[in-house]
Amino acid sequence: MSKQPLHIIKIGGAVIENPEMKQAFLDGFVALEGLKILVHGGGRVATEIGEKLGLKANMVEGRRVTDDATVDLVTMVYGGLVNKQMIAQLQHLGVNAIGLTGADGNIIRSTKRPVKNGVDYGWVGDPQEVNVEFITDMMASKVTPVIAPLTHDGAGHILNTNADTMAGTLAAALADRFDVHLVLTFELDGVMRDVNDPTSLITPFKYSFFEELKASGAIHSGMIPKLENAFKALKGGAGSVRICKYDQIHTTNGSFLQV
Amino acid sequence: MSKQPLHIIKIGGAVIENPEMKQAFLDGFVALEGLKILVHGGGRVATEIGEKLGLKANMVEGRRVTDDATVDLVTMVYGGLVNKQMIAQLQHLGVNAIGLTGADGNIIRSTKRPVKNGVDYGWVGDPQEVNVEFITDMMASKVTPVIAPLTHDGAGHILNTNADTMAGTLAAALADRFDVHLVLTFELDGVMRDVNDPTSLITPFKYSFFEELKASGAIHSGMIPKLENAFKALKGGAGSVRICKYDQIHTTNGSFLQV
Repeated sequence: MSKQPLHIIKIGGAVIENPEMKQAFLDGFVALEGLKILVHGGGRVATEIGEKLGLKANMVEGRRVTDDATVDLVTMVYGGLVNKQMIAQLQHLGVNAIGLTGADGNIIRSTKRPVKNGVDYGWVGDPQEVNVEFITDMMASKVTPVIAPLTHDGAGHILNTNADTMAGTLAAALADRFDVHLVLTFELDGVMRDVNDPTSLITPFKYSFFEELKASGAIHSGMIPKLENAFKALKGGAGSVRICKYDQIHTTNGSFLQV
Repeated sequence: MSKQPLHIIKIGGAVIENPEMKQAFLDGFVALEGLKILVHGGGRVATEIGEKLGLKANMVEGRRVTDDATVDLVTMVYGGLVNKQMIAQLQHLGVNAIGLTGADGNIIRSTKRPVKNGVDYGWVGDPQEVNVEFITDMMASKVTPVIAPLTHDGAGHILNTNADTMAGTLAAALADRFDVHLVLTFELDGVMRDVNDPTSLITPFKYSFFEELKASGAIHSGMIPKLENAFKALKGGAGSVRICKYDQIHTTNGSFLQV
């Protein structure tokens, strides 16, 4: 029996923060037929509200160091503000969406990242286990999961988890049961040789080439974990992984990854 | 066929803010057998974080006037911080909890409260419709809903909704299908003639007596909508409505309402 298609779509913080871009993204998401899951970021909104609260974002290699005050901040912003505004908008657009963190229904359990090379990321979680059963049941009852980049450790704590990691982890975990298509959207056309040259889009984008670009420093900071996770999803069994512009969900534009 | 018992338990902001009280409440909630729903407030936490953001709480008759900045604040605090921390704690305590606002799964749709007697409450919602089917399905799949005091208007907006109103509305809506027991918990023993005299607990607490106390001014501000909604749930078919201390969920202590 062939597997049922499932789209897992990720939207980043820069798109969320721009009402027109967000609306264009949501219109595309709404029009997408079949099973779908939305995974969102929200880092820029968190940084902005954090500044109002007197918290300065402390980033190491594109990841946010998450102390006690910062985990409260991201819990509010990702799990509350960004997630619930999106749910209300999707309900208005006719999608029966349900907002979840990894703690809700125990959908993604993580472990707190250990201190490594002297870097303590604080309340940051690396996903360990996905509750595939629960997510599958939820989609069977015609609701669309909208997942915030937060997980839990099973010991009572919320952990901050990168949205690309969440999307990649879900894609790999759900690939046994579904024909998963992972689409990571952001403000650019895809992975570019030169962000200022629209003709420089890289597709297909091979893993060996990613390793070259990483070694040369052409790809750095936040882009590395994003791409690592995207390739991991593909190796984990996802049918396709594409990185594209926020308003290109329907098309085949963008960078298709290839292992 | 007799209806299955369902406990709907409400926890207020003062208990949430106190870690020991919150833990005592959660221990009681966890130990409660059978179907259960938790409805939480969080007003005090919202006021505190609002002050850090330079927002001053503006209360009229115990209800928060909710302008644009305030609806974002309560969306963050109720839907994010308070709800998700509680979910992580409940998961740790062995309850497979799922955090929801009225927008999630379209469980409670509201209408924005119209301006009345010159008072514009802003983004405040009065519940109109409960998605009984979805809540029932959710409980059937062994997850415990934990509901934040937010609803949506179906037009893309989150609305601030009183937690007692949410609990009362859910109790009335679910009473057709379940033998509903509504328990409103807070920091006192129940409804007291004199808050400083522990022997002055009023139970049973009759609607006629409530009307007397309201007329005399002995009950005022935030206590009025709390009690109005509690009586409404009882009239709406709830099997029992009790107002008690946060650590008395299991006992029969507190004020039982009587119509």
